Amino acid sequence: MFESAEIGHKISKAAYREAVPALRAALLGAQVDLHENRKIPVVVLISGQDGAGKGETINVLYQWMDPRFISTLAFAEPTDEESERPAMWRYWRSLPPKGRIGIFAGSWYSDPIRQRIQGEISLKELDARADQINRFESMLVSEGALVLKFWFHLTKDGQKKRLKDLESDPRTAWRVTKWNWDRLKTYDQLQDVAGHFLRVTNTPWAPWVVVEGADDRYRSLTVGQILLAALQKKLASPLLPEAPVAPIVRVDTDGRNVLSELDLKLKLADKPYEDELAQWQGRLSELVRDARFKGRSLVCAFEGADAAGKGGAIRRIAVAMDARQYQVTPVAAPTEEERAQPHLWRFWRHLPRKGHVAIFDRTWYGRVLVERVEGFCTENEWLRAYSEINDFEHEMAEAGVIVVKFWLQISQEEQLKRFKEREKVAFKRFKITDEDWRNREKWDAYQQAICDMVERTSTGNAPWTLVEANDKNYARVKILRTLCERVEAELKGDAAPAVTVKEKSATKKSGKAAKRDKSGA
Amino acid sequence: MFESAEIGHKISKAAYREAVPALRAALLGAQVDLHENRKIPVVVLISGQDGAGKGETINVLYQWMDPRFISTLAFAEPTDEESERPAMWRYWRSLPPKGRIGIFAGSWYSDPIRQRIQGEISLKELDARADQINRFESMLVSEGALVLKFWFHLTKDGQKKRLKDLESDPRTAWRVTKWNWDRLKTYDQLQDVAGHFLRVTNTPWAPWVVVEGADDRYRSLTVGQILLAALQKKLASPLLPEAPVAPIVRVDTDGRNVLSELDLKLKLADKPYEDELAQWQGRLSELVRDARFKGRSLVCAFEGADAAGKGGAIRRIAVAMDARQYQVTPVAAPTEEERAQPHLWRFWRHLPRKGHVAIFDRTWYGRVLVERVEGFCTENEWLRAYSEINDFEHEMAEAGVIVVKFWLQISQEEQLKRFKEREKVAFKRFKITDEDWRNREKWDAYQQAICDMVERTSTGNAPWTLVEANDKNYARVKILRTLCERVEAELKGDAAPAVTVKEKSATKKSGKAAKRDKSGA
Repeated sequence: MFESAEIGHKISKAAYREAVPALRAALLGAQVDLHENRKIPVVVLISGQDGAGKGETINVLYQWMDPRFISTLAFAEPTDEESERPAMWRYWRSLPPKGRIGIFAGSWYSDPIRQRIQGEISLKELDARADQINRFESMLVSEGALVLKFWFHLTKDGQKKRLKDLESDPRTAWRVTKWNWDRLKTYDQLQDVAGHFLRVTNTPWAPWVVVEGADDRYRSLTVGQILLAALQKKLASPLLPEAPVAPIVRVDTDGRNVLSELDLKLKLADKPYEDELAQWQGRLSELVRDARFKGRSLVCAFEGADAAGKGGAIRRIAVAMDARQYQVTPVAAPTEEERAQPHLWRFWRHLPRKGHVAIFDRTWYGRVLVERVEGFCTENEWLRAYSEINDFEHEMAEAGVIVVKFWLQISQEEQLKRFKEREKVAFKRFKITDEDWRNREKWDAYQQAICDMVERTSTGNAPWTLVEANDKNYARVKILRTLCERVEAELKGDAAPAVTVKEKSATKKSGKAAKRDKSGA
Repeated sequence: MFESAEIGHKISKAAYREAVPALRAALLGAQVDLHENRKIPVVVLISGQDGAGKGETINVLYQWMDPRFISTLAFAEPTDEESERPAMWRYWRSLPPKGRIGIFAGSWYSDPIRQRIQGEISLKELDARADQINRFESMLVSEGALVLKFWFHLTKDGQKKRLKDLESDPRTAWRVTKWNWDRLKTYDQLQDVAGHFLRVTNTPWAPWVVVEGADDRYRSLTVGQILLAALQKKLASPLLPEAPVAPIVRVDTDGRNVLSELDLKLKLADKPYEDELAQWQGRLSELVRDARFKGRSLVCAFEGADAAGKGGAIRRIAVAMDARQYQVTPVAAPTEEERAQPHLWRFWRHLPRKGHVAIFDRTWYGRVLVERVEGFCTENEWLRAYSEINDFEHEMAEAGVIVVKFWLQISQEEQLKRFKEREKVAFKRFKITDEDWRNREKWDAYQQAICDMVERTSTGNAPWTLVEANDKNYARVKILRTLCERVEAELKGDAAPAVTVKEKSATKKSGKAAKRDKSGA
């Protein structure tokens, strides 16, 4: 990969002076088009060897373009804020919105390369990180981003020479420290690890561009011209490239599915409800104050039809915790800021720190539910969202986040009854809108979307729990119990249990009976 | 993933009888369209638990469709032929050509799952296999194939019941052996491993379809309907889905590249040529008879402009070996059979067994050279080919194949001289055609394509060696020497050396001088 970057490329001062003005004008023009018209997010990674001119190149790009629409993100050791969340969190929150250029000085490549050189991770683990990165970048590209990855290369001799040159010039001598000279010793190791890592992340959708770093003018001009060509090509092409996707299939040949099989007659009388509720709330309160929870965090995802009782269930969970420890995020239509980002961005930003709990009232599943059914996104977008969501939850689970997902199922009749009640009760009336009535008409389409969602996203790390929610007592206790049992198992170090699809036994249950039932399910 | 396949799906005899005739007719119709008009290859994987009806389903599909255009491939323990080649070789050679349906009973999923259950590979290794499989299936889909992956699922109780049912019926009792009952004991393990593996290979382009296996009629009807819907959707859509690709970039800002930097004046006089040739041929002869070579194999790839001297160099290698040990494959336009397959298929089929050597006169790089320049394939196709080729060579290297690649570079003037010589010499005249003259006109486009090829496919496992070939003596010795040194290093267990781009020192060399030169390059 480094062949072309070892031949001593050089641009004369005269040639540089001649080329730059036209390049600057064209870059500015493309940038305006990008920002004003096409609203494309541009991700530029500047990486490579020390002393190969990373910082200088970024400064040149700032001189050439309009700095108001560029951000540069530098990543050193993770902050507390960052280290208490999944590794990709700090990159997600730094993604440039549509129309802006985000320059990453150091990126999702830095840590894996460093960790491998220091022997902290094995080659297999490095490859696993490559796979994760490839999926992440594929998602960015599918979401419309232009991703440009530069690697600045120097030969070993070239690196030595460059450090000496910098040292000998009083204007740049300060930039060379003992640290730089030490890094020279690990040159071969870096070349070895980076050579492999670049190869396995050299994807068709986001290939590496290796640029020789020795000559400032060559390097600047080459990066500028490549950036310009890529911007112009992107500006001229359709906004969203469509990756191949297979259509959805249906397995309900006999008309039955995971929802139709739920026993919505399940009920819990008020007295045992009060008892059990108190019991599980107490248990939850203990669990989130458990010392072992300090190194973990909890994400509760609530989905369900309108009036299925999500809000009520969430309140029953919340009261068991200290308000400083949890955050409830109601998910409505995305804000303008959120619409300028990949669809999962607005959920990444709300991920909890260690020891904390995030409860989502509606979730990242909107894309495969309401957005699918209402046609708010393309078929290609929701079809690939299943994998993107699985990757998202997988990254959470890997970082120690406990992901618990509930679907609250009610019957059409029960929904109608609740709508009518809401219209009657003054303080509940605001909760029912015309939209709620319209959604009812699409009941069957939603049921299909929910089945597909469970089929494709109920995973070992993050299983769905389907909740029979016609009876609020029953639903709330099942949710609290599932939550407690799951957190308890995770704190004990057990894997996530097999998915709970349906309860096997009958109506009223004591706490004990419920436990037996669960273990048999 | 298994939720919907655990609810006891069932189709009554009456409903089945009513549905089948229309389904059969539609399947036959789609099959004809597939074979006669659209020429789409269809890959159907039938996998899942023992006793879940894999064999029965395949038989039903044969009853319903035209068996002349279906092949069923069953994979048990690898044969000698198969185990001496990369793991994917036996699947590549079984791929259905365009227009046919290939049913895989057992597939690229079987081995990784089995190996993980038996503890032969770690979870990280399993994930690496998943990544490899995802890339392979992505390539199939990009090449126009329809890929359908069925997993037949039974609950543990369901599996027990099914075995008992089969045993109690005299017509099917023979199908149940002790082996089946033993497998029941590993049910949980299989569920655990398969659950994970299915999740990580559940891609948007080739998702899994999990089908409950307990009821024969439900299972058959569901598979038939899904196959029909997928065929109809595929027949109605454009032939080639286009995955996102980034355009090619140029780094020769200063007009210099790896080819322009080659010193084509390098020469070797006849006398030292004879000596060195004999020396390296002797060494090669020893190396391929070395005991350590019995567990390895060698693939030599030759590319170069017309009249660059590929044939002559290949003959100098060949004479050093026993004709039973090597095979020279001249690559011309693909045959009809080859055109009905993914572009790498015709190279996979010629991979050597262990202890053997395959020499390719022109190679799988045709796609990013002649096919790119002449427009024989789309930009999307050649842009993604770089990764497909890297994957191909990576799979070879992983299986112990030593991959050595030579680009023979001559100047335009030298080519013209050789063309004219060929026209003069009677027995060489057949070697020069109008096409050769036409290709000369595209010299610059080819030089760019070659630079891009080196940039993107010169990897640690399979580096390119660029050969200064204006002087045939010099070129042949450099090729033989590079080959010997590489094979020697591999047999010693060293990794592939850094890429040799160019020779640093001057013309005439003794064997010793050449070696010194090499180590300094």
